[in-house]
Amino acid sequence: MTLYYFNFDTMTKIKVGIVQQKCSASKKTNIEMSIEGIRQCASKGAQLVVLQELHVSRYFCQQEAIGNFDLAESLPGPTYNEFAEIAKSLNIVLVTSLFEKRSAGLFHNTAVVFDKDGQEAGRYRKMHIPDDPGYYEKFYFTPGDLGFKPITTSLGKLGVLICWDQWFPEAARLMAMAGADLLIYPTAIGYDPEDTLTEKSRQHDAWMTSQRAHAIANGIPVISVNRIGFEEDLSHQTKGIDFWGTSFVAGPQGEVLWKADPNEMVNQVVEIDQNRTEAVRRIWPFLRDRRIDAYADLNKRFID
Amino acid sequence: MTLYYFNFDTMTKIKVGIVQQKCSASKKTNIEMSIEGIRQCASKGAQLVVLQELHVSRYFCQQEAIGNFDLAESLPGPTYNEFAEIAKSLNIVLVTSLFEKRSAGLFHNTAVVFDKDGQEAGRYRKMHIPDDPGYYEKFYFTPGDLGFKPITTSLGKLGVLICWDQWFPEAARLMAMAGADLLIYPTAIGYDPEDTLTEKSRQHDAWMTSQRAHAIANGIPVISVNRIGFEEDLSHQTKGIDFWGTSFVAGPQGEVLWKADPNEMVNQVVEIDQNRTEAVRRIWPFLRDRRIDAYADLNKRFID
Repeated sequence: MTLYYFNFDTMTKIKVGIVQQKCSASKKTNIEMSIEGIRQCASKGAQLVVLQELHVSRYFCQQEAIGNFDLAESLPGPTYNEFAEIAKSLNIVLVTSLFEKRSAGLFHNTAVVFDKDGQEAGRYRKMHIPDDPGYYEKFYFTPGDLGFKPITTSLGKLGVLICWDQWFPEAARLMAMAGADLLIYPTAIGYDPEDTLTEKSRQHDAWMTSQRAHAIANGIPVISVNRIGFEEDLSHQTKGIDFWGTSFVAGPQGEVLWKADPNEMVNQVVEIDQNRTEAVRRIWPFLRDRRIDAYADLNKRFID
Repeated sequence: MTLYYFNFDTMTKIKVGIVQQKCSASKKTNIEMSIEGIRQCASKGAQLVVLQELHVSRYFCQQEAIGNFDLAESLPGPTYNEFAEIAKSLNIVLVTSLFEKRSAGLFHNTAVVFDKDGQEAGRYRKMHIPDDPGYYEKFYFTPGDLGFKPITTSLGKLGVLICWDQWFPEAARLMAMAGADLLIYPTAIGYDPEDTLTEKSRQHDAWMTSQRAHAIANGIPVISVNRIGFEEDLSHQTKGIDFWGTSFVAGPQGEVLWKADPNEMVNQVVEIDQNRTEAVRRIWPFLRDRRIDAYADLNKRFID
């Protein structure tokens, strides 16, 4: 069916800044690098800036080590305050990804969103937690208890999800059903150096395909921000992770609007046209036709 | 994570035949062409053959015309019997897509699966029904009332869905949760000749991406069979449909194992390795991590 374009006074273009970076062992340096990236994006007109998953540190979940809990902070806390400050000073909406210490023995993988005034617009605690060699997140992060709720900001409702969530269509759908204007995935994912080239290629392609499909199924753009660089597995159980970068932005038909380099630090501004979202949702009205009378078993573990 | 391969006595390779065809106004010719395609696939070793959506006729849903209900048949009925016969004579499992007359005034878009002995293994009635210019299916087809239940055959459990279903991750998930070994989509989709080349490209890419993502999210292969050829809109409301062919088979990481030409009739046999399905489901155990405690709202129309 023909794709018509519409003009609505309420619809706008939105400039999204993506900060793709390499992390070192120095928290201070990592934060400085993020802030430099945010500044660059803001100077190019970004209204919303998205950071990668756990941007304050290396991806420490490669091993289960209790010392790593020292990386967590209360939210609010010093790092939280620093990012709140930068959001306010640059007048941007900022999506951060922090290691939250909620209490002794209770930690979350948490995205905090700051609005243009530096106030917290809301937070999302990662709901789906992975656990496999190289990604021992179940050791660190209690599964989120805030559900799949978009975060309301001055730029619209942000469907913020985190990394492993990107493999679950349920998460994207629930965000869209709750009115999300965008899906946003801070991410830390890479190659196992021991995999073959074809396996690496399949995994990377699956990662993009899965997220592009969330855009398609829900008729809303997707922003995914991933780290770069090789990080050693300090336990030497695996050969470490080559983070594959390639942060990207997809439009509401899953079309890739922009994709970052796999190896370079990037501070990029990408424009998203929300008129297209409205138009696409008119020609592909999937929300209209969901068979909610027949979906009850989605709440089961398995149908056996 | 490294993808290991396993050998299980119970796991096998399965040879799938795909019949991609152009339909004419002659039901007889269309059926003969399907049967010729099935024979060719069987002669190349196919154990399972999949036909495209509504392969007995042109895609009559381009207009709302009551005369088209004459194309429907009771199931069993003459066309049903013909395909049952060919499945038995070639000793194959066969997925057909028929216009079912269930009663006066009650019609479905129904996939009937025949087992190797020619008996009906089960049927699926299309659950998600489209309605937009060129695809007036809500006029013809009552939404299915059999739910999302895989059809058990001598080759395994087939998660048969139909066309518009391919845009709904819920349908694929429910089939996988009920034990489907494969997802199968007979389809009739094409280009609006009035769309720009870039819009056509986005739509085609979204179609493949959406289905490949069902493979990924559920760790099972996908078989999608689409028609070819231009079919006129007899009501002249639109410029007709250029069906885009490109039937394809994707593996459990969404990797495209084979893709048909957009314009040629095809009778192709593709081998699917079910060991890979088992291996991929071990490294990407998404079913393990679903947050069924937080999915209740999927049964709602919208969260407002």
